[in-house]
Amino acid sequence: MKAVVYRGARDLGIEDRAPEPPGPGQVRIAVAYTGICGTDLHIFHGDMDARVGASAVIGHEMSGRVAALGDGVSGLTVGQPVTVMPTRACGKCPACRRGNSHICHAMNFLGIDSPGAMQSSWTVPADLVLPLPDDLPLDHAALVEPVAVAVHDVGRAKVTSGEHVVVVGGGPVGVLIAAVARARGAEVLLVEPDGFRRGVASGIGIEVVDPGPTDVVALVNERTGGAGADVAFEVSGSAAGVGTAVDVLTTRGRLVMVAIHPQPRPVNLHRFFWRELELLGARLYQREDVVEAIRLVAAGVIPAQELISRVLPVAGVTDAFTALEGGGGVMKVLLDWQEEAR
Amino acid sequence: MKAVVYRGARDLGIEDRAPEPPGPGQVRIAVAYTGICGTDLHIFHGDMDARVGASAVIGHEMSGRVAALGDGVSGLTVGQPVTVMPTRACGKCPACRRGNSHICHAMNFLGIDSPGAMQSSWTVPADLVLPLPDDLPLDHAALVEPVAVAVHDVGRAKVTSGEHVVVVGGGPVGVLIAAVARARGAEVLLVEPDGFRRGVASGIGIEVVDPGPTDVVALVNERTGGAGADVAFEVSGSAAGVGTAVDVLTTRGRLVMVAIHPQPRPVNLHRFFWRELELLGARLYQREDVVEAIRLVAAGVIPAQELISRVLPVAGVTDAFTALEGGGGVMKVLLDWQEEAR
Ligand SMILES: [Zn+2]
Ligand SMILES: [Zn+2]
Repeated sequence: MKAVVYRGARDLGIEDRAPEPPGPGQVRIAVAYTGICGTDLHIFHGDMDARVGASAVIGHEMSGRVAALGDGVSGLTVGQPVTVMPTRACGKCPACRRGNSHICHAMNFLGIDSPGAMQSSWTVPADLVLPLPDDLPLDHAALVEPVAVAVHDVGRAKVTSGEHVVVVGGGPVGVLIAAVARARGAEVLLVEPDGFRRGVASGIGIEVVDPGPTDVVALVNERTGGAGADVAFEVSGSAAGVGTAVDVLTTRGRLVMVAIHPQPRPVNLHRFFWRELELLGARLYQREDVVEAIRLVAAGVIPAQELISRVLPVAGVTDAFTALEGGGGVMKVLLDWQEEAR
Repeated sequence: MKAVVYRGARDLGIEDRAPEPPGPGQVRIAVAYTGICGTDLHIFHGDMDARVGASAVIGHEMSGRVAALGDGVSGLTVGQPVTVMPTRACGKCPACRRGNSHICHAMNFLGIDSPGAMQSSWTVPADLVLPLPDDLPLDHAALVEPVAVAVHDVGRAKVTSGEHVVVVGGGPVGVLIAAVARARGAEVLLVEPDGFRRGVASGIGIEVVDPGPTDVVALVNERTGGAGADVAFEVSGSAAGVGTAVDVLTTRGRLVMVAIHPQPRPVNLHRFFWRELELLGARLYQREDVVEAIRLVAAGVIPAQELISRVLPVAGVTDAFTALEGGGGVMKVLLDWQEEAR
C-alpha cells in the first residue's frame, strides 16, 4: 500500500508500506478520500516538527470502508462506509475529568501524534470509527471532520433561529460555519477578502462581502436596527479580523474564537466591559459533533460537492499542498486513495 | 443645604443650594452618607468632562432617609432608610429591548449625567429608591452600590460552591468581589500588589498574595492539581493583570472583565482557543443585584465596617478625593452628610 509521509519541511514522500493488521479492538480501513486542512499545511511548513516525527504518516480528514476487524470489535462490518474521529483523549487529565475530552491536555491526535489517514490502509482503534450512511458519496464524507469543527463552533455560540451571525474569514472552516449557522436558522453574513472564496460562498447561497471596500460594522448595524450582530466567528486569524468581530457585536453578543492566533492580539476589552460581550474559545469537536456533521453532510445541508475544488491522485499530494498554501483558487482539495488500495 | 459640585479638573466646590421639592413620582431624600468610587475620581481628574457638566453635583454611592414624597408615590414613608439605584435606562434602545437595561445605550447615570448624591437633600425618581432594613447602619449601607457591582460580576461568572476563584486587583471592587464569591462558597485568592490593601483583605479573612514575589499561576496550579482556576476576575485595569487572569484559568474557565481598559490590551487568544476559555464583560448591575447587595450587607456577609477606612465631614471632600487617588492607605472613604441636613 501507499502512504504519504512527512520527511521534513516542504518534503512529502509517497512510500510503499505493508498494511498494519488490526490488533484487538482495532479496525483496518481501506481509505477512499482524504482532505487536507490548515494543520496539515502547518506540518508541511515544518511548524509542528516538535510533535510530528520524521517519516510520520499525516492526515486526519477522511472517508473509507472497513477492510478488516480486530478481535473483539463488534458493531461494524467489512465493506461498511466509515469515517474516523481522529482524536484520542487520555481520560485522566483535568479536562477529561470534567467531560471536556476534546481539550485533553495529553491529546493523541491521529495524523499529528500518531499515524494519520494519508495511507491506503489505516488501522485505528474501533471506538474512533463512525459509520456513514450507505448513500453518502465517499468524497463528500471526507468533509465530515471539518464540518464537525463547524458544528462545534456554532454549538459553542448556541446560535438560534433568526439571530444575526457574522463569520469573519471565508476559508473552508469559515464557509462551513456559515453553512451550519444558516442551517440553524441564522441570518449569516460572511466576510472574506479573497475573490475566489467569495465566489464559492455566494455559489452556495451565502451572502458574502469584501471587507476592503465594505464598512462591515456599518452594514451590520444598518441591518439590525443599530443593534449589531448576535454572534461573530473569528476565523481569519488576522488582527483586523479580531477587531471586526468585536466591533460588529450587539450588547451581550458572543464572539467565538476559532482561528489560531500565535501572537497575542490587541483586544478592545473596554467594549467587552461596556456591552457585556462574551468571548468563547472553540477547539475541535466532541463525538456528538461528528455524528451531527455526518447527518448534515448526508442531508445535503452542507453542499459538499460545491466545496470540493479538486480531487487529485495520491501522486499529486505535493501539488495539492502547494495549491492550498496559495490560499486563493481552491477551497477543499481531496486525495483519491481508491486506486492505491490493495 | 450643601452640595459638592464639580467645577473642573481637580476643583470640587461646596455650594449652598435650595433643596429641590419632589415632583410627581419623585422622592426627596435626606442623604446620610456618600461613598466615592473610581468613576468619581475619573470625574475629579477631568476625564469625563464630555458627560459631566460644569457645576454638576456628583456622587452615586449613598444611604439616607426619605424626607418628602411627591404626588403619586406609594410604598415609601418619610423617615424610612433607603438607598438609590443611580441608573435610569431609556427602555427603547437595543439593550433595553432585550432586557439588558443596565447596558442601556442612552443610560442616565445619576451623578454623571444628572445631579448626583453628594448633596444633603437629593430628589430622585421613586422607582430608583430601595428600602433598607431598619437595623442596617447607614454608613454600612453606603456600600450597597459597589456591593451590587460585585454581586453582578460574580453572577456573570455563575460562581458555584467549591470553585476556585482568582480576583486580580484588590481595590474596593476587587475585595467586594472576593467577599461575594466567598459567600457563594468559592475558594478565593486575591492578587494585589499594595500592602495596605492586602492588609484590609486579609483582615476580613480573604487570602491575598503579592504578585511581585509570587508566581500566581504556579500557586493556583499547585492548589488545583494542575487544573487552574474556574473563574478569574480582572479588576486591576493593568496589562499584567489581564495576562494573569488568562493564564490562571482551567479548561473552559471564565474570565470576567470588570476593570476599564481604555487601551486595547494584548490578549493570548491562542489560550482562549486551546482551552476553550470564556471572557465575559460585566458592567454595573440590575435591580435584583442591588436587592441582593442590601441583603448581603445587612447580613454582615460584607464586612462593611472593616472596609470603611475613613468617614469625613463634607468640608473634607477634596481631602477624601486626594487620599483615594493616592491608591494606598485607604479602601472606602465616606462623607457624612447628617450634619448638613436642614
Ligand atoms: Zn485528557
Ligand atoms: Zn436603553
